[in-house]
Amino acid sequence: MTIKAINARNQFQGIVKHIKRGDVVSEVEVDIGHQARITSIVSTTSVDELGLKPGSSVIALFKSTEVALASFAPA
Amino acid sequence: MTIKAINARNQFQGIVKHIKRGDVVSEVEVDIGHQARITSIVSTTSVDELGLKPGSSVIALFKSTEVALASFAPA
Amino acid sequence: MTIKAINARNQFQGIVKHIKRGDVVSEVEVDIGHQARITSIVSTTSVDELGLKPGSSVIALFKSTEVALASFAPA
Amino acid sequence: MTIKAINARNQFQGIVKHIKRGDVVSEVEVDIGHQARITSIVSTTSVDELGLKPGSSVIALFKSTEVALASFAPA
Amino acid sequence: MTIKAINARNQFQGIVKHIKRGDVVSEVEVDIGHQARITSIVSTTSVDELGLKPGSSVIALFKSTEVALASFAPA
Amino acid sequence: MTIKAINARNQFQGIVKHIKRGDVVSEVEVDIGHQARITSIVSTTSVDELGLKPGSSVIALFKSTEVALASFAPA
Repeated sequence: MTIKAINARNQFQGIVKHIKRGDVVSEVEVDIGHQARITSIVSTTSVDELGLKPGSSVIALFKSTEVALASFAPA
Repeated sequence: MTIKAINARNQFQGIVKHIKRGDVVSEVEVDIGHQARITSIVSTTSVDELGLKPGSSVIALFKSTEVALASFAPA
Repeated sequence: MTIKAINARNQFQGIVKHIKRGDVVSEVEVDIGHQARITSIVSTTSVDELGLKPGSSVIALFKSTEVALASFAPA
Repeated sequence: MTIKAINARNQFQGIVKHIKRGDVVSEVEVDIGHQARITSIVSTTSVDELGLKPGSSVIALFKSTEVALASFAPA
Repeated sequence: MTIKAINARNQFQGIVKHIKRGDVVSEVEVDIGHQARITSIVSTTSVDELGLKPGSSVIALFKSTEVALASFAPA
Repeated sequence: MTIKAINARNQFQGIVKHIKRGDVVSEVEVDIGHQARITSIVSTTSVDELGLKPGSSVIALFKSTEVALASFAPA
């Protein structure tokens, strides 16, 4: 069974740059190009099941309801 | 009081392109450059309080724990 | 591009039973068998992009970090 | 069946002050005392099932993983 | 004080099968019957406060807004 | 660049009371006054970047969509 499409509006293709492996959860840094990175915290079991390591191609995805918006002042 | 720094690792500066205004929540599309967009669903009250409209500068931010990772096969 | 695997540990295959369509978000009830249902709230845009309607086959998925646990007393 | 305890560390008892009812989701403002309020967005179906209205006693609860932290500068 | 009802639409009663205990968070696998499992990541403090161990009866619950939907192709 | 305002409706100013430091994530207890505490789980990297320690002033913030509501019976 293969997922064809997912409702998460926000999907970024990238390359795993670094994995900080923890006992239960791990932090995965994904380079999505143009000097931008997305950091994901997933279970260490998932890191192993997906076979993630630096250089792996991944999609980082998140639901729109999880995104907050802030206004800002120039420094 | 001004927020200096926030722990959300994932922060993207962008421009509001479109707001789909709903009765309780609204969908805000943010252009973060390089043809990439982040979609956020926030309360319509927040849209009004932040004064968001197309052209507004915003930061889209989300916690690392909200980001899922997927592996993929080329089409 | 096709997603091969996703880190969300919790994935349930089911059939859409009912969609309560809203202006910005919609509520989708998914029958996952054995009299169990999972309810998902996604953007109405996603409902349309995925072409969801009653009878559609879907996977409902969520991250482990989103699941709370409660102890209970028999009624 | 009655829930005895739930793992959500953050639980605040309060009184519903206002409900902004939407087609699919509703915004519920809960007065938790000492001039503090917590706003919750839940499905309108849930508002009806719990019988929520201004004056209802409720517990607002959320998981620790959902809480972001920010440092700030005095105004 | 006892919780009578909670707005989370998605509540599954089950038995804890396994706990992977970590320094700050732990991964709890809950057997919800019919060969289905839900995995939850909660604080290790919560595991201790709820007295969770293999064999404990629990309810796994999550908000509808946390559930993503995907369409799929047969393998 | 300084964040002026953020859409998270729920923002509580407080003082860090305790940090339980883990390998990847840490648990931060924030005293928000009136004997109330909010617990946050953030990445340990964020704890270090924000320079959090007991006594630090912080804002704990979370989106309305993350807040569940429960009705309850007096003990």
